[in-house]
Amino acid sequence: MTLNVGVIGTGAIGQDHIKRLAHKLTGAAVVAVNDINRDSAQATAATIGGDVAVHGSGQALIDDPKVDAVVVTSWGPSHEEFVLASIAAGKPVFCEKPLATTAAAALRIVEAEIASGRHLVQVGFMRRYDRGYRMLKETLKAGTIGEALMVHCAHRNPSVPDFYKGDMAITDSFVHEIDVLRWLIDDDYVSTQVIIPRRTRRSRPDLDDPHIILLETRSGIRIDVEVFVNCAYGYDIQCEVVGEDGIARLPEPMSIQLRKEERLGNAILNDWKLRFIEAYDVELQEWIDTTKRGEVHGPSAWDGYFTAVTSDACVEAKRSGKLVPISVRDRPSFYAR
Amino acid sequence: MTLNVGVIGTGAIGQDHIKRLAHKLTGAAVVAVNDINRDSAQATAATIGGDVAVHGSGQALIDDPKVDAVVVTSWGPSHEEFVLASIAAGKPVFCEKPLATTAAAALRIVEAEIASGRHLVQVGFMRRYDRGYRMLKETLKAGTIGEALMVHCAHRNPSVPDFYKGDMAITDSFVHEIDVLRWLIDDDYVSTQVIIPRRTRRSRPDLDDPHIILLETRSGIRIDVEVFVNCAYGYDIQCEVVGEDGIARLPEPMSIQLRKEERLGNAILNDWKLRFIEAYDVELQEWIDTTKRGEVHGPSAWDGYFTAVTSDACVEAKRSGKLVPISVRDRPSFYAR
Amino acid sequence: MTLNVGVIGTGAIGQDHIKRLAHKLTGAAVVAVNDINRDSAQATAATIGGDVAVHGSGQALIDDPKVDAVVVTSWGPSHEEFVLASIAAGKPVFCEKPLATTAAAALRIVEAEIASGRHLVQVGFMRRYDRGYRMLKETLKAGTIGEALMVHCAHRNPSVPDFYKGDMAITDSFVHEIDVLRWLIDDDYVSTQVIIPRRTRRSRPDLDDPHIILLETRSGIRIDVEVFVNCAYGYDIQCEVVGEDGIARLPEPMSIQLRKEERLGNAILNDWKLRFIEAYDVELQEWIDTTKRGEVHGPSAWDGYFTAVTSDACVEAKRSGKLVPISVRDRPSFYAR
Amino acid sequence: MTLNVGVIGTGAIGQDHIKRLAHKLTGAAVVAVNDINRDSAQATAATIGGDVAVHGSGQALIDDPKVDAVVVTSWGPSHEEFVLASIAAGKPVFCEKPLATTAAAALRIVEAEIASGRHLVQVGFMRRYDRGYRMLKETLKAGTIGEALMVHCAHRNPSVPDFYKGDMAITDSFVHEIDVLRWLIDDDYVSTQVIIPRRTRRSRPDLDDPHIILLETRSGIRIDVEVFVNCAYGYDIQCEVVGEDGIARLPEPMSIQLRKEERLGNAILNDWKLRFIEAYDVELQEWIDTTKRGEVHGPSAWDGYFTAVTSDACVEAKRSGKLVPISVRDRPSFYAR
Repeated sequence: MTLNVGVIGTGAIGQDHIKRLAHKLTGAAVVAVNDINRDSAQATAATIGGDVAVHGSGQALIDDPKVDAVVVTSWGPSHEEFVLASIAAGKPVFCEKPLATTAAAALRIVEAEIASGRHLVQVGFMRRYDRGYRMLKETLKAGTIGEALMVHCAHRNPSVPDFYKGDMAITDSFVHEIDVLRWLIDDDYVSTQVIIPRRTRRSRPDLDDPHIILLETRSGIRIDVEVFVNCAYGYDIQCEVVGEDGIARLPEPMSIQLRKEERLGNAILNDWKLRFIEAYDVELQEWIDTTKRGEVHGPSAWDGYFTAVTSDACVEAKRSGKLVPISVRDRPSFYAR
Repeated sequence: MTLNVGVIGTGAIGQDHIKRLAHKLTGAAVVAVNDINRDSAQATAATIGGDVAVHGSGQALIDDPKVDAVVVTSWGPSHEEFVLASIAAGKPVFCEKPLATTAAAALRIVEAEIASGRHLVQVGFMRRYDRGYRMLKETLKAGTIGEALMVHCAHRNPSVPDFYKGDMAITDSFVHEIDVLRWLIDDDYVSTQVIIPRRTRRSRPDLDDPHIILLETRSGIRIDVEVFVNCAYGYDIQCEVVGEDGIARLPEPMSIQLRKEERLGNAILNDWKLRFIEAYDVELQEWIDTTKRGEVHGPSAWDGYFTAVTSDACVEAKRSGKLVPISVRDRPSFYAR
Repeated sequence: MTLNVGVIGTGAIGQDHIKRLAHKLTGAAVVAVNDINRDSAQATAATIGGDVAVHGSGQALIDDPKVDAVVVTSWGPSHEEFVLASIAAGKPVFCEKPLATTAAAALRIVEAEIASGRHLVQVGFMRRYDRGYRMLKETLKAGTIGEALMVHCAHRNPSVPDFYKGDMAITDSFVHEIDVLRWLIDDDYVSTQVIIPRRTRRSRPDLDDPHIILLETRSGIRIDVEVFVNCAYGYDIQCEVVGEDGIARLPEPMSIQLRKEERLGNAILNDWKLRFIEAYDVELQEWIDTTKRGEVHGPSAWDGYFTAVTSDACVEAKRSGKLVPISVRDRPSFYAR
Repeated sequence: MTLNVGVIGTGAIGQDHIKRLAHKLTGAAVVAVNDINRDSAQATAATIGGDVAVHGSGQALIDDPKVDAVVVTSWGPSHEEFVLASIAAGKPVFCEKPLATTAAAALRIVEAEIASGRHLVQVGFMRRYDRGYRMLKETLKAGTIGEALMVHCAHRNPSVPDFYKGDMAITDSFVHEIDVLRWLIDDDYVSTQVIIPRRTRRSRPDLDDPHIILLETRSGIRIDVEVFVNCAYGYDIQCEVVGEDGIARLPEPMSIQLRKEERLGNAILNDWKLRFIEAYDVELQEWIDTTKRGEVHGPSAWDGYFTAVTSDACVEAKRSGKLVPISVRDRPSFYAR
């Protein structure tokens, strides 16, 4: 059985996902596309091969009876509409992050999914599918280092484009840690605090950089994450879990060890896309496979909502300089762990 | 277009390849199987799903008009027969290593393929598809370390089963280095010498262990490979290329760094199957893709022949304790680099 | 010229220093000892060889005209008295940490030294003499990573004895980071905050463990230090400085890389004494050499005072859970950088 | 008691040793110097301070009753004469490597020392005093990796000066491995073979580079050493011992780990002097200490002789391309292990 997928949004990430679904992964076909820019949709459809419908609206695509499942890769503000419409149509939907641009909107999706009685929504947090993070989670689950007490992380980009400013270090970069760390340690956050160190000379007036973001979990685990988006030296994701019996660290990406020019070492990636390129493949393959079985194993609407609330709290903590509680609804039994 | 594959030999490696072709990779289907043990073939066919023919002989499978391409995973002594039959039938054939059990037999395959006028044969040396070796080859090709001068390698198994004896350290283990190093440095061997160090107490009287095998290439590169199949501590494949401008080393398999019990370090694999499990996937996926295009990019019949000649020379060098030349036919233009 | 040293306090650390001064280092002799336990002093004197006076009081030792310089290794509450007496006698004095048990007492020493008009006091913070920290400081001074923005540290002991409780994680362990980090980044602290993560099951009710201690410096550098004194796995000191252009990390102690029992790695020390054993030698040798030239290059009375104020602020921050400012006197010109 | 040392040869290494003896180490004084260039001797004497005799000949220095022990750092061809004269005078002598320029001359020294009935001669192979090699030897002695079976080594220099040519890769560079590996594995060599790989473009016509030198020991351990003196990238000494139960590797020199400019790694030394600078200190300090006790614990005249014989055999093996036996006298009981 092939999962026939309709993709809303044929920008960069949309095209990447279409290539995966159509050519690289197994068990799915892209049968319909839509984009606010119809030319983009047409052009993309032409690259897929086969009989691909180009719809005039996301709703029309969702309503297309040939479409078994929907992938939403349109721009963020449209996510809520298309995810809700997919739920209304009873169709599984994979929505790129963010699930919605506000916590309130994410909560509306949560409520709609619960009301539908079926698990339909998955959010595109790909780090959970990274081999390194998975190895780390397995190490924790195996009890190798005992109970987790602290997590030390870093999220570093060599530089960011001009449009990256304001709170984007939180809403665009740190949001990945919000999701993946919660999954990694299987715990929820209760408060946050944001520290702003001395600014790197490489940043601009409209962008604080770096940040240190602290999170406390329900069980008392303390997380500190350095977010440094003009670190100059490379794209570097670090994560170290300190447990009662030992410490486990996310592996460095595989690379050739070189002895050259009086240095012994390995290359650091520069491009974030390369760092998680495989995670995207695994993510969508597992989405195809679980969707066919009528299941959602990936980041859920609840996770999308929790992340949105946490992100909002971090932004507030940054502005106030104070400890800010992270208050979410009680976890619905629908999303029981 | 789906490549319809027939698989001869449904033992362990056959079943692994069938699972890959049928369920994991894209663009292929397993439509026919055969095994000397018909029950095994039947049982395997049942696991595939769909309409799978169970043939009474390898020849019958090869002759099946539904079969586009053949995978030979039967026991070694039968390889020659099935590869030659596939060539005769004009069908692409992927043959697990060894291509044949003697250099003379491998040469008959080479001659048959040349006579057929088409590139049909690929040999299952999977290391060329390992991500680490590919990174290493890219490093060499990029000129990062200049011209290669020496290669230092190790091939270590924690232990070997009782049936592993005699010259198997060469014919079964080192044979992988014979193929992959030739590919890595894009050069041919001209002589070999085998050194037998002090035997580990963990070996048996019928098995010298470890060995150090030396190879010289046409351009003068010197290769030394420690083959140590009762090394006790793990399955460990090392490869270091010393160039004029620096040294490049095969990456360690990705693993979690642990600080625990007064040690800082990483796990070493114990099972060779895990070390190259991805390489098998890549190998067969690329074989599917290139076969559909009528091409052979992987290890060719010529490579299989060259490996057989080298392996024979190493066995002779081990017995004589002397330097033994590696003499092959002139490379046919059919197999031009 | 030999520096004739009198040692007050012949306990464990006193005996270690006496061995160094008498047998291992150059340019000094131990000519007098004193201890509250006269038997200990006598026994220690006998191990030194030569003519060693055993004095009935620290004051008597300080007054001994044969004594050129004083080493204070008695218990902490007596440090102020003997350091002040040494200053009064115009004799250089090396005082093991802490300089005094309160910031007020440390300030009295500062004032006495200033009043004496001569630099006489050095405090025994040995980490500044550790090869790794020195390499790290040289890296920073060379501008290799640009301006420092953040420092991430860990101070981990495998376990602590029963008498270690209350605030000792700050006053006894973290105090080393207080001194060495200030020296490392050549900056002063302005505030601190202490976070108490989930407690390890290995700790006791009378000891919070681990802690995360945050410091802010005058220039805005943010420091976070995990202090985890029941980490179980070993004695492990980590320090990573994040600069505008790169990141520099304290080296691991030198050790043999082993491949054994399915692990690739290195030993982690268990005993803190081994970690800094060479630093003690370097510390005292440099003290001998600079003292002979009438100079003090090591941690000064001012540093001892600054550390005491910082330590007090951290204890307060731990109790209050709040950000606590670190307020010191203006730096006297006597201690100009 | 101070060991009063006379130093014959005030060139570079002589001056280094004089600085160590006079200023850095404990328990020795330099009381006499001699050099074929009297001006050099005079100038050096002036740097030492105190009453230093400048002798007109090495023999005169040896005969000086103030001289307790002799250090020979003159040029190689003069070593035999001064060592024999020291033995004749019954004075301990530390001779920089080589002990003598021929195996026959080294044997004359061995015989003279035996005839004298006293252990007087130590040869300046400093690697035995390197912390890393000592850690490696302790690991072997502790049985951590079981019995040694193979040793893989590399001796790499970034480049060599113009006067370095002919067999110097063996006689000047590899000679260090000859001594230190024999000590490391506590075994003797029985044969050698030398392989000459493709020459680096960085070498000159009068210098083969690199070499691979193979040694076999009495117990069957096989050693391979890559000697590559124009490796370009740095001064790099590698040593890995493969045992029955695991593998132990010489530590890399301590250095700061950097993340910078898309690379993660550590500096490699460029200057061989820095690599073993501490080993020289330890070597001479231990020589002072053991000499005062009338003992020789360092490389003996027998070791110097064994090294000379091995070096000669390697040169012959290089020229012949054949396996060459290493034949030494039976080990005299005087030099029993």
